[in-house]
Amino acid sequence: MEFELKILGSASATPFMDRHHTAQVLTVGGTQYLIDCGEGTQRRLMEQKIRHQRIHTIFISHLHGDHFFGLFGLLGTMHLNGRTEPLRLFGPPGLDEVLTTQFRHSYTHLSFELEFTPVDTTQHLQIFEDKNLTVHTLPMRHRIPCCGYLFREKPKRRRLLAERLPDGLTPAQLSALTYGDDILDDYGQVLLRNTEVTAEPKRTRSYAFCSDTLYTEALADMVLGVDLLYHEATFLDDMRDRAAATHHSTARQAGRLARRAQVHRLLIGHFSSRYRDLQPLLAEAKTQFEWTELAVEGLTVSLAE
Amino acid sequence: MEFELKILGSASATPFMDRHHTAQVLTVGGTQYLIDCGEGTQRRLMEQKIRHQRIHTIFISHLHGDHFFGLFGLLGTMHLNGRTEPLRLFGPPGLDEVLTTQFRHSYTHLSFELEFTPVDTTQHLQIFEDKNLTVHTLPMRHRIPCCGYLFREKPKRRRLLAERLPDGLTPAQLSALTYGDDILDDYGQVLLRNTEVTAEPKRTRSYAFCSDTLYTEALADMVLGVDLLYHEATFLDDMRDRAAATHHSTARQAGRLARRAQVHRLLIGHFSSRYRDLQPLLAEAKTQFEWTELAVEGLTVSLAE
Repeated sequence: MEFELKILGSASATPFMDRHHTAQVLTVGGTQYLIDCGEGTQRRLMEQKIRHQRIHTIFISHLHGDHFFGLFGLLGTMHLNGRTEPLRLFGPPGLDEVLTTQFRHSYTHLSFELEFTPVDTTQHLQIFEDKNLTVHTLPMRHRIPCCGYLFREKPKRRRLLAERLPDGLTPAQLSALTYGDDILDDYGQVLLRNTEVTAEPKRTRSYAFCSDTLYTEALADMVLGVDLLYHEATFLDDMRDRAAATHHSTARQAGRLARRAQVHRLLIGHFSSRYRDLQPLLAEAKTQFEWTELAVEGLTVSLAE
Repeated sequence: MEFELKILGSASATPFMDRHHTAQVLTVGGTQYLIDCGEGTQRRLMEQKIRHQRIHTIFISHLHGDHFFGLFGLLGTMHLNGRTEPLRLFGPPGLDEVLTTQFRHSYTHLSFELEFTPVDTTQHLQIFEDKNLTVHTLPMRHRIPCCGYLFREKPKRRRLLAERLPDGLTPAQLSALTYGDDILDDYGQVLLRNTEVTAEPKRTRSYAFCSDTLYTEALADMVLGVDLLYHEATFLDDMRDRAAATHHSTARQAGRLARRAQVHRLLIGHFSSRYRDLQPLLAEAKTQFEWTELAVEGLTVSLAE
């Protein structure tokens, strides 16, 4: 089953040349989740040949424009294309009022149900669950209410080893084996030991999206050991005072957090428009954490099972 | 003095490949006026090397997203860049509520004064005047309140013919000549006849922007004889029923209106995404009015004095 992240935007507040505002698409088992939705996201989706019809859930980190101004247009295009499937939307309180005010003045009655759930950005709580994933909020420390999101695959069942399975097992028995049960006879004696015919489940993968935030060491516990961490790195560390004043992080701090949290891979993004060349940001993060990449437009990261 | 229109977007509601949502910049004597502001307009301005700092007035036709969703991001970028000059904004009632709701939830206090004036989209009235221009609303018939805008240069003063001017005239006398007055002596006798030393004023130019609308013949009187008419042409005429149902016009209707109004030149735009090739739209409009062009991205039209 795929577990793939695609980056649509790497810019911070002021857009820059060919860098776009924050938006990412996580695809897990054919289901697509949109994370933030900066201006122009619907066009980025077209460029990347991602069909917006396949997006059923959207997570917005906070209500600064570079993280959600594309939502108006994306919802509008879904509506004009006659979408009927409900769309789930998570974000800070107030997002619904911004949207409904616009809908009211444009006399728009969406062709689909928009199910908005406000999230408490100060808590680390599970807010979402479907057949593939759970999603928890990650409290960020920014100038306005803001949270990241932690996506975790659900625990998987044990894998049947076909070549070792005896004939004649019923579907119920096969299912029981995937849950780790032994097969017993009518007297409670073990007929078939689970470990002899099954293998460990495939590993569950995880992705943590840490949007705009002050460097916050407490985050390390919440994202401990994740496969993939995205952390903003708006500035180089020589501007850490500016980063602190604007409630942002530096590339060095992003790398440090990745190291503390013992993650497998780090992506950095949300680059200030002052940096034409991003290599110094990458190099700085790597001084702290070797397995760092730049989360630039079009980057696709697939995590193996 | 320049009088130049630049097209930033030609798409209708659903964006299409390399066609963008409606936005136009009119430059008159160094002053820039933005007309509509579809999603991504700030990026179009960058591409066309138009500095948003030079825009002091924005006119929005209506509150469908493809005509104003870029306003959030453009105002945000002006704010982040520390703009201090006031910005004047004209548009249908409700635009201010949409903006202020968003500002409130993003805790944004703009660095500049945004002077919003709601316009009555049902009237043909002067709403704006500066040293170069007057602007009148043009009532459109669309699904929601919508108006176009008519930009007219102010009448100009007569031109002094330097080679015919006698020596010794005072600045006040020279100024009086440009207003068409003769120069009199103390007894009221004509010393210098105006027509002997001045020429006709340069012509005043005019541009009419007719945004989304049903074909409306009454518009012809309001835009009679303008130098340049932009009229939407969402569909080909074989879809005139669909045009009527969605309150849009066809290319044939746009051409017909240009002919009726005896304008000098016609631009058509706001093309449905169903048309990959725009030449049939152009050809159809030309059956009605020869001097038609496609208002496509990057088109620049300069009107001579």
